[in-house]
Parts: sequence; structure tokens; C-alpha cells
Amino acid sequence: MTGFVSFVGSGPGDPDLLTLKAVKRLKAADAVLFDDLSAGPILAYARSGADLVGVGKRAGRVSPKQTHVSRLLVDYAATGARVVRLKSGDAGIFGRLEEELVALRTAGIEHEIVPGVPSACAAAAAAGIPLTRRLTARRVQFVTGHDASGALPRDIDLGPLADPGATTVVFMGRRTFPALAEALLDAGLAPETPALLAEAVGRPEQSLYRGTVAELAARLAGEQGTAPALILYGPLAETDSGDDFA
Amino acid sequence: MTGFVSFVGSGPGDPDLLTLKAVKRLKAADAVLFDDLSAGPILAYARSGADLVGVGKRAGRVSPKQTHVSRLLVDYAATGARVVRLKSGDAGIFGRLEEELVALRTAGIEHEIVPGVPSACAAAAAAGIPLTRRLTARRVQFVTGHDASGALPRDIDLGPLADPGATTVVFMGRRTFPALAEALLDAGLAPETPALLAEAVGRPEQSLYRGTVAELAARLAGEQGTAPALILYGPLAETDSGDDFA
Repeated sequence: MTGFVSFVGSGPGDPDLLTLKAVKRLKAADAVLFDDLSAGPILAYARSGADLVGVGKRAGRVSPKQTHVSRLLVDYAATGARVVRLKSGDAGIFGRLEEELVALRTAGIEHEIVPGVPSACAAAAAAGIPLTRRLTARRVQFVTGHDASGALPRDIDLGPLADPGATTVVFMGRRTFPALAEALLDAGLAPETPALLAEAVGRPEQSLYRGTVAELAARLAGEQGTAPALILYGPLAETDSGDDFA
Repeated sequence: MTGFVSFVGSGPGDPDLLTLKAVKRLKAADAVLFDDLSAGPILAYARSGADLVGVGKRAGRVSPKQTHVSRLLVDYAATGARVVRLKSGDAGIFGRLEEELVALRTAGIEHEIVPGVPSACAAAAAAGIPLTRRLTARRVQFVTGHDASGALPRDIDLGPLADPGATTVVFMGRRTFPALAEALLDAGLAPETPALLAEAVGRPEQSLYRGTVAELAARLAGEQGTAPALILYGPLAETDSGDDFA
């Protein structure tokens, strides 16, 4: 008797941004393992009686060890359960999916990946801007602002990130953006490059702040915010969306 | 009397990868303007009586002029209609969203963007791989393989694309990948870099082919395929997914 694990991208947090397939998997699940970012109203789609297990990782808090999460997945599946492993945004972007995939493969447990709406796409949509533009923003890239210790990755490659012709989205970068911005400006990025801070994307408390890379770095250097945040910069960040920004 | 336009990312083509919000917008729409890639079973969610208007752009075929699409959007909205502008994948990635946004802003028409599942995320999920990995694939980037004329963009910046520590997804690159690969190898990318060709992602005829960048370039140089294709390369493309590949 072996179970089945569905890695499910839950989107940024707004339950309306779940895919139909994600809802089907949630409704059929015997157990749902979720991170903090994907919890809340999304879990309402799980059937009553399903085990709902928080294995949350969140900036600024101590996380359960990754091996613990993988072990839980394997143990649940070994009971024959249909398991949903919810991951916020898309399941394959900065969610440490591979560690869990390897654990399942090693244990011989069947699984699938259900893609979701990346929070970067939701942030751009909320700001009323596209992520690419012909000629001037022909590349879009997602990077993480911190390594396993929470610091800016030491060997981060600045060349691609200082490219004025790309849209860059920094995930989990709220605490390290001042240091990243300093390095980017040293590498040649213009301080007036348009930037956008998107907090709690897809949730009722969502807020957007627009400025330049330099302004955003200064703002984040002096604050102690803890809301999940994405930082987007590049030529498209200045597009007039007609919306009000904080 | 003014209408409202929802730009809706329809995901890669599998109707199960529509978001709940996309389905709501489709059900409420008076008119749906769609590209070829987002058509088919997805349109079944539109109510009977809605105008379904194909404005398809597809590799290898003549496209309606972009200005024509923008004009249609404005004209429909001006009648007071609720309009859905379906775009395959995420609405903001390589969909020429900005041209249409500008037309609506100029005409003073209210609109929103509903993000969707990018086809790149669906391709990786289908292949059983994540798009990022700690330490060795900390950046993921999406680029387009052709410019407005269908050729490889002449001033494409090879540095970021030849980075062995990133996952790169080339959209609309089937015809130009041999030329791109040659340039990438000249720029220092290893010919044995793992690569994946994903055709018709999210559709019943989906197929995946795995090889090296050099092998994939050779394969595409000798063929006349027309199915929509994504090319993914980088260290993660070689992960053993346990699935069968063509």
C-alpha cells in the first residue's frame, strides 16, 4: 500500500488564484502539508477530516529542518495516504522542491508536480504591469535574496542582475535588499532604476510601494517589516498603472 | 457606458490549470478575445452567447497587427461589454500585454490583470523538475527566442544566458535555438549542459525530449516542427524525474 504525493503550487495566497487542479487535489487529500504562506483560506478547500500539517518556513522565524519535512511526506505516503504538499506561488520556484522530490524518489513513492501562479506574476499583475516588453525588457529573472543562513548569497553573480534591459524579481529579499542594491549600483545599475516593493501579494493586506532602487534600499534599511515581500526592478516598474500606490 | 477588460493568463493550455478567477471572468464575459494557444477547451468556460474572437498569433503564421487587437479591445469595451483578453501562460510574460494596456489607458477604459501559470512552470512540472535549486540554480530566467521579425534578437545579451548557474527557459525559440545555442557555446556555455524541449505543454499531445544543449540544437536544426515549444536548459534539466521521455 503506497500513497501518492502531489506537490501543489498554491499561488500567492489569494484562494481565487488556485488552479482548478489544485482545488481537486486539495479536495481529495488525506493529508495537507503546508507552509505559512500558503495557509489560511486556501486550506478551506481541504475536506473535513484531512490532516492539516503546518511545516512553515518564514523569514525571521526558526524553520523545521528540511529533512523533517521530507520525512513527514514519506511517512504520510507510506500509510497509503493521498498527500498534498502545498507550496506558495509555483511549486518549483524557491520552494526547495528538489530535496523533497529526492526523498520521495529514494523511498519509491509516486508523485506529481502541479504548477501554480508565481507570486512574482501576481505582484506584477497587482501593479498593473507586464514582466516583459519588446526591445527594452526582453528577459525576466527571479532570484532569491538570501541563502540558507538568511544573508545575501556571497557569490551572487551581479552581471545579470545589473542588466538594465531585464525585469528582475527578488524573492525573500526584504532584509538583504539594501546590501544587494549597493552591490548592484557598484556593478553599474543606475540608482534611479524604477523599483517596486510588493508586500503580502494576493492577500487582503497587500500593499505596493513604488520608487527607485536607491529609494527602496533606503526605505528597507530603516525598517523592521516582516510581511513577505517581493522586490521588482527594471524599466517596467515605472509604467503608469493608473492605480494608487502607498 | 464603459466596459471593463480583464487580461487573463490562461495557463499553458490544460483547462485544469486555469485559476478559479480566470474561470469566473470567463463565465461573466460578454466577449472573449483569444490567441490560438489559449483556445480549445478553455473557451468552454465562456457562457453561451458570448462573442468568441480569435486574434491568434502563432509561430509561422501571419498575425493580425497588434494595433488591430488593441482596437478590437477598445471597441468592445466601448459598447459596455465585459471583455476577457485571454493570454496563454501568464498574462505578463511575452504576451505583448503592454501595447494593449496602453491602448486601454489612452481610451480611459478600466481593466485588471489576472495572472496565470506560466508555460515555463508547467513544462518544468511536467518534466518532474524544479526551476531553482539551492547553490547551483539560484536564478531562473525567461527569454524570448525571436524578435518581431521572427529572427533571433540581434543584440541579445549572451552573458546572463550562458551562466551555468541559472535555469533558462527560451520561449518561442524552436526555429532560432540552433543559432542561439551556437552563440551560447561561443560565449562559454558547455555543450553538454542539460536541456529539455517541451512541446505543446499542458495539452494532450504534450511531449518532452531531453538531451544536451548541443544535441537539442542539432535536433531542431533538422526539423520543421510547428508545435509551440519551450526550451529549458541548465543544471536542473538533467534531474532524473523517473518519467519516460520521448
